[in-house]
Parts: sequence; structure tokens; C-alpha cells
Amino acid sequence: MLEQFKIVLSHTTHPGNIGAAARAMKVMGLSQLALVNPSQFPSAEASQRASKASDLLANAQLYQTINEAISDCRLVVGASVRTRTLPSRLVTPRELVKIVEQNPSNVPVALLFGTENSGLTNDELHLCHYQVYIPTNPDYSSLNLASAVQLISYELRLAFSDMKQLPEQRVIDNERIISRQQLDGLLAHFEKVMTETKYLNPEHRKQIDNRMSRLFSKAEVTESENRVLRGFLSAIENSLGL
Amino acid sequence: MLEQFKIVLSHTTHPGNIGAAARAMKVMGLSQLALVNPSQFPSAEASQRASKASDLLANAQLYQTINEAISDCRLVVGASVRTRTLPSRLVTPRELVKIVEQNPSNVPVALLFGTENSGLTNDELHLCHYQVYIPTNPDYSSLNLASAVQLISYELRLAFSDMKQLPEQRVIDNERIISRQQLDGLLAHFEKVMTETKYLNPEHRKQIDNRMSRLFSKAEVTESENRVLRGFLSAIENSLGL
Repeated sequence: MLEQFKIVLSHTTHPGNIGAAARAMKVMGLSQLALVNPSQFPSAEASQRASKASDLLANAQLYQTINEAISDCRLVVGASVRTRTLPSRLVTPRELVKIVEQNPSNVPVALLFGTENSGLTNDELHLCHYQVYIPTNPDYSSLNLASAVQLISYELRLAFSDMKQLPEQRVIDNERIISRQQLDGLLAHFEKVMTETKYLNPEHRKQIDNRMSRLFSKAEVTESENRVLRGFLSAIENSLGL
Repeated sequence: MLEQFKIVLSHTTHPGNIGAAARAMKVMGLSQLALVNPSQFPSAEASQRASKASDLLANAQLYQTINEAISDCRLVVGASVRTRTLPSRLVTPRELVKIVEQNPSNVPVALLFGTENSGLTNDELHLCHYQVYIPTNPDYSSLNLASAVQLISYELRLAFSDMKQLPEQRVIDNERIISRQQLDGLLAHFEKVMTETKYLNPEHRKQIDNRMSRLFSKAEVTESENRVLRGFLSAIENSLGL
């Protein structure tokens, strides 16, 4: 599904931004990049900023007009932080992914990004079914072009990648949480040392026990950590000559 | 609340990344930047990349060790795309904001970002309550430092800014959606011209009417658009000598 989103950069002034946008896309698993009349492309600066996403630059489609770039797309969305005289259908990135989720056959989807200084022209915005607006600080809403591509690509990945969002961690026996029985053993050992050191006052015993139980439950004590704590408690007892 | 999040950049190699991170933060309304032993700071390149976020650089706190940088913070979170030998509590950015929402008094929150090439060290990660993992393409997960700051800052803004996410659009009478009565008038005019031009076949009349009604409901026709359509329909009738 991520293949169905085409990032269209219109009249980009700085080639470095094209490279940074390609990197932002690839990190999120997008690959379709279209360039409309960039001021300089190909460019060494674009390749350098793209880092290992240079394949996206090599495969980028070049167009003279935005109409050609989006001709095969069904849904066309313009990214802009400016609002215009003529109101358009403004949506947040998260609302946008819901709209696509509800109509998954309306692909390919074009996402248009205008030139750095002034954004999409009114003519470009009128080609769009929606205007996606990234929420920003009203006192300083100057989102870098590649950052805007990064945020939109991130929302698309979260919604349309079928991979797990978090990597699976290796199972290490030492790092498994201890059993309830082991936890009870640890708490009993603490209570014993607290009594031996005369910290535990019978009056507050219940209160202290509850706090210790809550603390070491929250801590999700692992096998290796349990061994450290038990060893330490035994060392205290040894030092006390018990 | 956004003031309660401190971005801590540890041992940053490229000063440009510090500037880009400052810009990424300010665009999302964050302002607390701490730098731990950056290889070069202050720097002209940082200031240039910060653009109008140079106030964040001017107010950045400089530290020799990460422990000093986070000493006043209650919740400490490390950003990393690598998983480690010792498993840690991995959360997505969206899970992280839920954790903070559930315990809003656990502030200030420190968000640690490691050096560009290798990320947070194991020692740095062991200072963290959680490790936040930004979902990325497993084939190319090399998220730029400022991009990582941008994505986290964006999630924080969505969760913790009390401003509306979308700007209010100006009310222009011409751009209000027409009333149902006006829409019925438009559809009746279409039907009249379709009949006059012999397009409308009585057999399919109902089907065509339904499609036209659905089409112009979806289109959310405005006053100004209605005038264009009505004018055009009248011009057709005039041309036909009706």
C-alpha cells in the first residue's frame, strides 16, 4: 500500500531538500517521488543529502507541469501550512489517513508539496481534493520541506505498513521477569533484613510491606536483577554477622 | 505543558543537526534544548540551520555529562532505533504520549537523542525509564537526528498543545455551501437542460437523477460555484434558442 503514495515536489528551489525528502520517504518505506520543474536536478547536493536513498532519486519521475505528475492519481492532496482566500477542505495528517483507509481503492494518491518559500500556488491547490495541514506553532510555522515530507510519510507508514511497529526483542532467560514466587521470596528477604536492622517498626510494618511490594512489582524485576538484590541482602546479613 | 519536555542531544557531531533540531522543536512549540558535550557549539552552521529558531540555541543549556542534563527531570526517555542486548521497555511515540497523559505530574520529561552515527550508548539508555522507538523501514532505518526530533516533537504537540489543530477559515458568504433548496433548484435546472437536449431518457431518468444528486451533494457546491453552474445551464438554453 505504501507504494500507492506518490510524493510530488513542485518547483523545489534547493536540491538539498530533494535529497533530504528522498531520505525521509525511504526511512518510512515510501518510494514514489515525482519532481515538477526543480531548479536543479540531478545535483550532487541532492545525492549527498539523500544518503542511502539515492535509488529514489535515480527513479524519480521528472515533469514539466504538475498536471502531468498527477495524471494517474485518483486522490490528490496538497500539503500547505497556509490557508487561502478560497476555503478548501482542510484535514490534519491523521484525518487524511482515515479518509484513505475508508476508501482504500482511491489510489494512487498524490501528495503535493510546493516550492520552499511560498508553498503551493492557488492553481496547484485547486487541483487537490484535500489540503493537508500539519499542526504547527502559530508563532513559527516554518516547517522545512523535508520535515513536512517526513511527518506525512510517518503517518502513512503508521497507517499503511503491515509490519509491526516495534521490533521483537531477543528472549534472554536472565532478562525474564521473575515469577510471583520469586518476587515473594525477594520481598520476604527484604522484610527479614529490615527486621534484623531494626528498620521495621511493627506499627508501620503493613505500610512498608505494601510500598515495597508495589515498588518491586512496578520495577518488573528480572532474574539477573533479582540475583543482584538477593546477593546484596545476603551481604548485609553477613556483615552483621548473622 | 510543551514547556515540560526537554530535548537532550548527547555528543552531537554535526552542528548543523543541532540547528535543524532547534527549528524542528520550535515549529512544534517546544523550547527546552540541552546539549551534552557537542563537538562544536556555538557554530555558524547551527545558527543557519536553526533559521528563526536561534532563540532556542541562545537559550540552550550546555552540560558535560548527560546526568547533569537530566538531573531535574522525572521521566527520562531515550530515542533509539537500535535494540540492545539488554531488553528495555520499548514504546512507540504514540504509546509514549499516552504514558505521559496518564501521569501528567511526572514532569519535566527528558527526551535523549544520542550521537548521529551510533545513537545512545548503553550507559545512556540505562538512565531511561523507556526507550522510544520510531517505526521505520527495516531495510533503511537511518532517520536523520533532526527528523527524529521533528517526529517526536510533532507527537508531543498533537497530544499536549491545547490549540486547535486546524486554523479557522475565514467565513466568506460566497463560499458557504448552498441550501438544500438551492441544490434542488440546481438539480432541477440540470434535469430541464438534460431533457431539452434529449439526453434524458425516461427509462433511465431516476438513475440519472440519483447520480446527479449524489455527485452535487458530495461536491458541497458553494454559492459562487452554484452561480457558475446555473449561468452555464442558462447559456446552453440560450444557445438552443429556448
